[in-house]
Amino acid sequence: MDKINQFIDERNWRRFHTEKDLALSISIEAAELLEIFQWKTSDEAKEDFEHLKEELADVLIYSYMLADKLGVDIDEIIDEKLIKNKIKYPIETNE
Amino acid sequence: MDKINQFIDERNWRRFHTEKDLALSISIEAAELLEIFQWKTSDEAKEDFEHLKEELADVLIYSYMLADKLGVDIDEIIDEKLIKNKIKYPIETNE
Amino acid sequence: MDKINQFIDERNWRRFHTEKDLALSISIEAAELLEIFQWKTSDEAKEDFEHLKEELADVLIYSYMLADKLGVDIDEIIDEKLIKNKIKYPIETNE
Amino acid sequence: MDKINQFIDERNWRRFHTEKDLALSISIEAAELLEIFQWKTSDEAKEDFEHLKEELADVLIYSYMLADKLGVDIDEIIDEKLIKNKIKYPIETNE
Repeated sequence: MDKINQFIDERNWRRFHTEKDLALSISIEAAELLEIFQWKTSDEAKEDFEHLKEELADVLIYSYMLADKLGVDIDEIIDEKLIKNKIKYPIETNE
Repeated sequence: MDKINQFIDERNWRRFHTEKDLALSISIEAAELLEIFQWKTSDEAKEDFEHLKEELADVLIYSYMLADKLGVDIDEIIDEKLIKNKIKYPIETNE
Repeated sequence: MDKINQFIDERNWRRFHTEKDLALSISIEAAELLEIFQWKTSDEAKEDFEHLKEELADVLIYSYMLADKLGVDIDEIIDEKLIKNKIKYPIETNE
Repeated sequence: MDKINQFIDERNWRRFHTEKDLALSISIEAAELLEIFQWKTSDEAKEDFEHLKEELADVLIYSYMLADKLGVDIDEIIDEKLIKNKIKYPIETNE
């Protein structure tokens, strides 16, 4: 997160970063990641491995930026969500 | 990541998780996050803070699962992407 | 389009409909359509045919609303795009 | 629709077009449309009017292709959806 923040601040980009535009950016990057799989199987898409890594990184970078902007801790919100999912999908039911 | 993997394995869900479907799931979760901002300002959306945290967590969980499936390290791919962005957007140009 | 406009005006919803929020809504509806295919083959998804029709209709309704808001004619912009694509992808190359 | 079908058949592209990949393509194009609004107001995005028209056309083209593939009539599914929405959102409640 420190490196991401430094990158943004050096470019004075923070003023553009409303929560709404960050959420929108996550969707855009997620679609760029998805585009690598368009008309392809997973195996065919993986031939473009460098591209996959870059687009996945972009999704993560914007997600971390939104978490930072909202003042929430990433590990904490994932933990909370997993606990909720455990209640929603108990082990026995298997789906 | 350990907790996420444990959650998945306990439910025997891994067989569904092709890379393509994980990429598709990231897009779907990103859109659910975006939906909280639909017809709203960022401030109005933040009134639904619990929901924001949950949907952001879902984007992160699927992103981590795809990283894990691809065998890549999250911190590493973010680092690599930031270095590329530094070359693409040098500090001087500011946009 | 007349029916869509009537539906909106009867509910006094037009004030919410900025172009940005309409574009965002198209993405959200597209993801809801995509969700029907999550962890599934096309054939499995088609078992949920009513749902498919509804979500596809939602994508179209918001797309028509954005076209209307921008003052563009749907058939015309599709025609223009197909002409551009014909130049970009000539018949001989086949991808 | 005839023009779209002719364009596809001339290029022998139909074999790639599963329903799942068409749904995925609608999401990708919707995100490309959304990208025009990234970090911008609606008015700023409209300065890129040609681009807006093109990306909206792409969403429509893939939506029509999916409708065609599913064998459903566009006007009919929109009509059906508007009737359902009228029940879901009666005029009196205004939201």
